[in-house]
Amino acid sequence: MTTQKPTFNTADTVARVRGYLEGLQARITSALEDIEGPQSHGGARFRSDAWRRESGSALQGDGITRILEGGRVFERAGCGFSHVSGPRLPPSATQHRPELAGAPFEAMGVSLVFHPRNPYVPTVHMNVRMIAAGTGAAGTDAAGQAGQGPICWFGGGMDLTPYYGFDEDAVHFHRACRDALAPFGEGLYPRFKTWCDEYFYLKHRNEQRGVGGIFFDDFAELGFEQSLAMTQSVGDAFLGAYLPIVQRRMHMGHGEREREFQLYRRGRYVEFNLVWDRGTHFGLQSGGRTESILLSMPPLAAWSYQREPQPGSHEALLTERFLQRRDWI
Amino acid sequence: MTTQKPTFNTADTVARVRGYLEGLQARITSALEDIEGPQSHGGARFRSDAWRRESGSALQGDGITRILEGGRVFERAGCGFSHVSGPRLPPSATQHRPELAGAPFEAMGVSLVFHPRNPYVPTVHMNVRMIAAGTGAAGTDAAGQAGQGPICWFGGGMDLTPYYGFDEDAVHFHRACRDALAPFGEGLYPRFKTWCDEYFYLKHRNEQRGVGGIFFDDFAELGFEQSLAMTQSVGDAFLGAYLPIVQRRMHMGHGEREREFQLYRRGRYVEFNLVWDRGTHFGLQSGGRTESILLSMPPLAAWSYQREPQPGSHEALLTERFLQRRDWI
Repeated sequence: MTTQKPTFNTADTVARVRGYLEGLQARITSALEDIEGPQSHGGARFRSDAWRRESGSALQGDGITRILEGGRVFERAGCGFSHVSGPRLPPSATQHRPELAGAPFEAMGVSLVFHPRNPYVPTVHMNVRMIAAGTGAAGTDAAGQAGQGPICWFGGGMDLTPYYGFDEDAVHFHRACRDALAPFGEGLYPRFKTWCDEYFYLKHRNEQRGVGGIFFDDFAELGFEQSLAMTQSVGDAFLGAYLPIVQRRMHMGHGEREREFQLYRRGRYVEFNLVWDRGTHFGLQSGGRTESILLSMPPLAAWSYQREPQPGSHEALLTERFLQRRDWI
Repeated sequence: MTTQKPTFNTADTVARVRGYLEGLQARITSALEDIEGPQSHGGARFRSDAWRRESGSALQGDGITRILEGGRVFERAGCGFSHVSGPRLPPSATQHRPELAGAPFEAMGVSLVFHPRNPYVPTVHMNVRMIAAGTGAAGTDAAGQAGQGPICWFGGGMDLTPYYGFDEDAVHFHRACRDALAPFGEGLYPRFKTWCDEYFYLKHRNEQRGVGGIFFDDFAELGFEQSLAMTQSVGDAFLGAYLPIVQRRMHMGHGEREREFQLYRRGRYVEFNLVWDRGTHFGLQSGGRTESILLSMPPLAAWSYQREPQPGSHEALLTERFLQRRDWI
């Protein structure tokens, strides 16, 4: 029996990952349209914008930007697929891989943020991506330990940002995250949960963005096939993690008070994305496609000075109980 | 006749500049309250928050944050005075003065952003500040050419961000800026006008923030007294530059269309402040007082995907004619 070093046909690998990601985008947007319901009853549909940047740009590549606005359930829901390559890996991507500084790279991913209309339904974010860097194209073995061809790694995760917190929602979401990772190693969920808490943190507010979830980056330690499978498992788990929460909350009655609180808290979402999110910041400053990057922005957000929720209110509970680092399961 | 090198009593200088800035804040907020009109008719008032950070913080000092929310004319108007000192000048402040890297510093200023309710009234920003760095306290001769004591410099400016453009407003605002600088040198207005166009530019949108105005930083070339006088002249010119525009536009009729366009364009204001503004960014990332820094945020802002104004409309004119680098006078 001979142990074969895993080798990949680059073009096949790219096509396979791309096919998965395009399918994931289609499944997710289709499920959201089901929840929106028939157009005859005000259910909104995603518009689809296919774009292409020719070689010669700082980033070349293509993508499909899908966005739903003014829906019955979702006020703004953006879900983008993109596949880009560039001649030089940005410094923000090579902090932990100095040997790759300035190397050519290729990146593909699906990224989404959904902003529901009902303040009792939380906002959600999910992202899965693969990056390959080095000479040649994508698709060799993860971590590239053989020193041949490019190095591949994965990143992504999902996190939940409620305006009104419910324990059962946070627990459900975290369980779905844990279950998606469980087949790939017992230690992954706690590690990625902590990583998420640390990443989605607004330092200038000394506040978590939401109830967390999972986040990972620069991941290749299971080898290419298993690392890809784990990333796909996260993508596949998204609808099961989020939709039951939407369905449980979307018909809850609310008034001006809840709406105002939602708009105010959405201001924090904007602050996180524009001040702290490395991807958004890098994208905007490096000439990425602005309208696709800013799919994550809420449709409407408010700011007001030192707004303090009434002690003991459901609004006060958000910061006291839910925007804290906590073990939900 | 002997030529005396200008020397200053540090404490006196600080007190004098501080007195000017506190007075400027009081004059400006009082003028806005006059425009709001009597409280019995819905005219809002500024609330005043005096704050203090004891020594031992990254930044120590005090300030007065004044904010008006939900007014008849102004939906959110923030005007802050602050006076802080720290043990080490931040790197962002010493790009052009490497010899001061890490030196102790002291900074005072007034900064304001006013977001009116009527979409025909432009948003405005003004800022005047003095920074002193080096051994000893503030107040020696500008540029510190004698190499004794601290170095002092000034910065600030004002700029106008209309939602619906009017030539006469842009011309009036720029004339007021030009007239404020004229006594201090003929070349200042064109230089600071260009500086403003370059600074208030959203690279990720390839778009100016507004119709510009003036901006200057690191300014000491007229010597301490004249540099201070010029900065005061800019501060003193603010009400005359802005209020006539408010009075001309605040009663113009408008509907949902204009309101929506205003909210959408305010999203760009948020993007500029959180992605590109060095002061905001540095403040938030270095532990400044968040609620005071984010006085500049609009009360409500919207995002939507690739919104394109109808060709030939007043909305289309904003980007085509007004958000362009242009000589207004």
